[in-house]
Amino acid sequence: MLIVMKADATEAQIAHVCDVITELGFKPHAMPGATRTAIGVTGNQGAVDPTRFENLPGVADAIRVSKPYKLISLDLRPEKTIVRVGDATIGGDELAIIAGPCAIESHAQAFAVAETVRRSGARFFRGGAFKPRTSPYAFQGLGEEGLKILAEVREAYGLKIVTEALDENSVDLVERYGDMIQIGARNMQNFSLLRRVGRSTLPVLLKRGLSATLDEWLLAAEYIMSEGNYQVVLCERGVRTFAQHTRNTLDLASIPAVRRISHLPVIVDPSHGTGKNYMVIPLACAGVAVGADGLIVEVHDQPEKALSDGAQALTLEQYDQLIQEVRPIHEVVAPQPVA
Amino acid sequence: MLIVMKADATEAQIAHVCDVITELGFKPHAMPGATRTAIGVTGNQGAVDPTRFENLPGVADAIRVSKPYKLISLDLRPEKTIVRVGDATIGGDELAIIAGPCAIESHAQAFAVAETVRRSGARFFRGGAFKPRTSPYAFQGLGEEGLKILAEVREAYGLKIVTEALDENSVDLVERYGDMIQIGARNMQNFSLLRRVGRSTLPVLLKRGLSATLDEWLLAAEYIMSEGNYQVVLCERGVRTFAQHTRNTLDLASIPAVRRISHLPVIVDPSHGTGKNYMVIPLACAGVAVGADGLIVEVHDQPEKALSDGAQALTLEQYDQLIQEVRPIHEVVAPQPVA
Amino acid sequence: MLIVMKADATEAQIAHVCDVITELGFKPHAMPGATRTAIGVTGNQGAVDPTRFENLPGVADAIRVSKPYKLISLDLRPEKTIVRVGDATIGGDELAIIAGPCAIESHAQAFAVAETVRRSGARFFRGGAFKPRTSPYAFQGLGEEGLKILAEVREAYGLKIVTEALDENSVDLVERYGDMIQIGARNMQNFSLLRRVGRSTLPVLLKRGLSATLDEWLLAAEYIMSEGNYQVVLCERGVRTFAQHTRNTLDLASIPAVRRISHLPVIVDPSHGTGKNYMVIPLACAGVAVGADGLIVEVHDQPEKALSDGAQALTLEQYDQLIQEVRPIHEVVAPQPVA
Amino acid sequence: MLIVMKADATEAQIAHVCDVITELGFKPHAMPGATRTAIGVTGNQGAVDPTRFENLPGVADAIRVSKPYKLISLDLRPEKTIVRVGDATIGGDELAIIAGPCAIESHAQAFAVAETVRRSGARFFRGGAFKPRTSPYAFQGLGEEGLKILAEVREAYGLKIVTEALDENSVDLVERYGDMIQIGARNMQNFSLLRRVGRSTLPVLLKRGLSATLDEWLLAAEYIMSEGNYQVVLCERGVRTFAQHTRNTLDLASIPAVRRISHLPVIVDPSHGTGKNYMVIPLACAGVAVGADGLIVEVHDQPEKALSDGAQALTLEQYDQLIQEVRPIHEVVAPQPVA
Repeated sequence: MLIVMKADATEAQIAHVCDVITELGFKPHAMPGATRTAIGVTGNQGAVDPTRFENLPGVADAIRVSKPYKLISLDLRPEKTIVRVGDATIGGDELAIIAGPCAIESHAQAFAVAETVRRSGARFFRGGAFKPRTSPYAFQGLGEEGLKILAEVREAYGLKIVTEALDENSVDLVERYGDMIQIGARNMQNFSLLRRVGRSTLPVLLKRGLSATLDEWLLAAEYIMSEGNYQVVLCERGVRTFAQHTRNTLDLASIPAVRRISHLPVIVDPSHGTGKNYMVIPLACAGVAVGADGLIVEVHDQPEKALSDGAQALTLEQYDQLIQEVRPIHEVVAPQPVA
Repeated sequence: MLIVMKADATEAQIAHVCDVITELGFKPHAMPGATRTAIGVTGNQGAVDPTRFENLPGVADAIRVSKPYKLISLDLRPEKTIVRVGDATIGGDELAIIAGPCAIESHAQAFAVAETVRRSGARFFRGGAFKPRTSPYAFQGLGEEGLKILAEVREAYGLKIVTEALDENSVDLVERYGDMIQIGARNMQNFSLLRRVGRSTLPVLLKRGLSATLDEWLLAAEYIMSEGNYQVVLCERGVRTFAQHTRNTLDLASIPAVRRISHLPVIVDPSHGTGKNYMVIPLACAGVAVGADGLIVEVHDQPEKALSDGAQALTLEQYDQLIQEVRPIHEVVAPQPVA
Repeated sequence: MLIVMKADATEAQIAHVCDVITELGFKPHAMPGATRTAIGVTGNQGAVDPTRFENLPGVADAIRVSKPYKLISLDLRPEKTIVRVGDATIGGDELAIIAGPCAIESHAQAFAVAETVRRSGARFFRGGAFKPRTSPYAFQGLGEEGLKILAEVREAYGLKIVTEALDENSVDLVERYGDMIQIGARNMQNFSLLRRVGRSTLPVLLKRGLSATLDEWLLAAEYIMSEGNYQVVLCERGVRTFAQHTRNTLDLASIPAVRRISHLPVIVDPSHGTGKNYMVIPLACAGVAVGADGLIVEVHDQPEKALSDGAQALTLEQYDQLIQEVRPIHEVVAPQPVA
Repeated sequence: MLIVMKADATEAQIAHVCDVITELGFKPHAMPGATRTAIGVTGNQGAVDPTRFENLPGVADAIRVSKPYKLISLDLRPEKTIVRVGDATIGGDELAIIAGPCAIESHAQAFAVAETVRRSGARFFRGGAFKPRTSPYAFQGLGEEGLKILAEVREAYGLKIVTEALDENSVDLVERYGDMIQIGARNMQNFSLLRRVGRSTLPVLLKRGLSATLDEWLLAAEYIMSEGNYQVVLCERGVRTFAQHTRNTLDLASIPAVRRISHLPVIVDPSHGTGKNYMVIPLACAGVAVGADGLIVEVHDQPEKALSDGAQALTLEQYDQLIQEVRPIHEVVAPQPVA
């Protein structure tokens, strides 16, 4: 924490700020400068809330220095985490591919897509049984019936099942049928849900919120880990900006940014990250090139009839093309050094 | 829905799009233009998902025209809704004031603030018992103990209690102790929670999400109403933008925008909407001047010792000043006509 | 400047950073903390570029503390600036009203609007002769002919003329015909243009850029003042965000934010700030309530035939209504104290 | 253009809108729907301004359909443009590399960097002689002296010189000494400058504005082309968002978005696009993988002593590494099909 005094702050005001710091059990370091005095604060174990100081007389600004996360950080664990889902991994040398339809619509649809996903060499199958939809009148997913279809896909193809939970009740169901719990962007700061999956034995795929800062995203992972579940994979899925040529703006710089701070694996979602079918393959290539540990993509056997998000789903042919394009890029990309 | 064909779209492609529209049970209206053909879609009762058309051959763009909401709209109910909480109202002629600390910290704190709030003529007391905090290590609220203090405030001062619920369990508790359930910005698209409060008999204060569009916010209200609870108050509390001189950017234009579409009351939160103590009064004045039905503000008897959000809380003196400044503005503001 | 070292930074790395600071002629203040060391930098007259330190070994972050502006700041001039345009003022007790059409289209149009503006008691007339249009094929203004019409308006009605200059050539012309030079949002960082108007004897109305931070906006004013022209009025006109219910998001919190740092007057543009006719009056009321020194609004005698920005222009009747609504608010608003 | 009437619009209001459309010389197509009537507008050659209709009685919304650009579009020119700068090209099969320091600081600095750039096989050298700086007190570039150094670099190494012009005067100078004129992000809508370079014989590198939409960026190119200069290269350099872990958010989806509409080449600037040294290489890899025609990167022989933007400049060694990493990706990336 650094407190910057106003240019015309009096000696008494500076002394008062130092007293407040001392009262809180910290140590003040006054640094008189050419135009104004700054006061460093040390002795705190975690982050100090800057707002306590902002309104004291003579204070111009209070700047947070320490970061409020611990478990997610490289300070705590310098080597990268490899999340294991049975014999499949995310965060290791292999590029993790999670593919499947936005929503599970029927046994036929799920199996048609899973067949292609399996043949491509991917290890993970995605598909929503509970869909968080902006409108209450839109298709909300098949619920438990969808989860049962997913369990049959696992049985038939050996794919690991990644599926979203929306609340405590659906976490219970996903734990019964699935292999990895997805927390969607709209629930990234649903702290009750984060704590609940923090007590699960399944690994968690944590999507970045629509307008989440890097710190908020990492702290959402910290919520999960603080309950004891260390198997967390981060997923960049685009953020909301003024730009209207995509549904979201895919922020690929978040991949090296996460790498510099955290040991957790991070993957890219080019489907939600763009919302446009024709952009999925080029942005998937970019995601692999920037150093992501994997991709999650939407695939549908009949995208024009999809009950949700049809415009961004790849056809089976396009999905095959994606795999053919990203694999050679993954091979030539130098592994990102841990900071 | 309007589908815009590419300049070089063939007759066959245009015919195919018309066929797809017909197959879906709608009616196509092809309009050949100077440079390209557009195809109108009618016959749909609600909104058609544009993404079904975006990838058809020859299609340049698909533009949504109908809006997906019903219950919140002036089409359905042309006169303004007045939400009643006992003998207090939001949405009527009186300016509704909801004031109190960010979090309930102690009996002494709550009563010190409530005393001032009551004396000011305000009818509502706010205070969090369950706090959604970005960090798992920050103060998370007193829980049920906080709710009991709130119930005592109601008993002692006759103020109506507005307090946040984070999940189904806390809704049960708020229903027991409070008068109005607040849904926070981070939960605006927690659809399970929205459905739950839609089945409550208490009115709901629905905060706008951090990056919610107008439509998403109104559809969140639609979720609540679609379960049968029509007592919903919207709350503008600032959105996330690039600007760093405030914690959020208070989007006061959302007030007339809501008025033009919806019969629901809408209030302004200048505390979270700015995050800066010195901005709360001027932005509260602006909120009243723009035509809001009320204000929700954070007040603390000792802001410098607040366990959360101290920097934005008003002192008791500042709160009194706010009331003195906003009342005369409310008197001179012409009532906003319903569109 | 504060440099935050990594948790595992070595003594040698800390010493090296201190050496670099000393080499640059500044003074390092190392503050060992519980988890990491921070190093304060003093002795600098202006801002130090943090990027010089960010890549040194062991450095986690470098945080700028001093602000890079001087002339615009209350540190330099504690009393508010009143900009004088003949006998009219902006920044004094009177609410400054600048009204007129987006673009000057004809003598008849300008006079029809000016008649109403004059009768309302406003002192300033706006109207564009040079229009910065997104498309090269849109109406670009009447040029010098438009300026001549503006000069006739001044002659006939005694209104002060505020009009935009786009480049050095148009500054010359505005100086010949006008009373105040407007710098548009798209030119807020056209530094050659800023320097040119900084050498003018006319006052300057400086609109905030579409995505300008507070600092960038203030530094644009600093550019003008650094050339010797201290007669600068700032204008909040909305910024670009994800929100689509308005053309721009009017950031009224920028008014108290400017007040806290600068002595310059600041006005609000509710026309561009919303882009919607029906929002102009409520947002004008909000702008006055938040403490702005004035308003700039678009008025047209026949908005439906306007050659640019017709949707946001007020009719003559609506303009009269605006004046009737904002004046009583201005009377009851307490003057904002200088910070 | 599509005009959507309100649900309760009267027949007379619908007829009036149709009349206005007819008066303007266009053709109305009324389409009565289940809940409301929409009116299509055809017969317009270019875009119709929707704002003319938004305030007519009974109108709910007016939606623009036609795009306002011509020359930049694939409709006009279906094959991709290859910009030629002497014997070097941008937009062909070869990956174009433009590298050099942010600002030209001295002969020694320029030559040290140019030596490395030349040896890497790059064909273009960048370096600013006129620097647009946020603060008037920051280093503004060497001016014509800097251009002379650049001309010597061309002489010595055969590299093509890409350098920024800020105003008409500096365009004259860049035309004398350089090979390609750069228009910076802050000047993307400096329409006088765009027209001026539209009359130049040199090709133009047009950076995307800080908050420019895709349409605004393409229309800025249209400004240049409408004056006769068809040699335009677009450059994605990041946009301003809420995210603070980078200086800008690099929007790589803009590359396929441009491809789908325009024949112009488009390159990526990972230096300004991130503002962080450690992110430049991964984002350069992503830019190549997404299908960009080239890269522009900042390189400095002594970044820690750079007079501007030191934190993002690559060292000579890092630059060599970048080239080694991006070339194999370029080789495996499938050429993007023209839409």
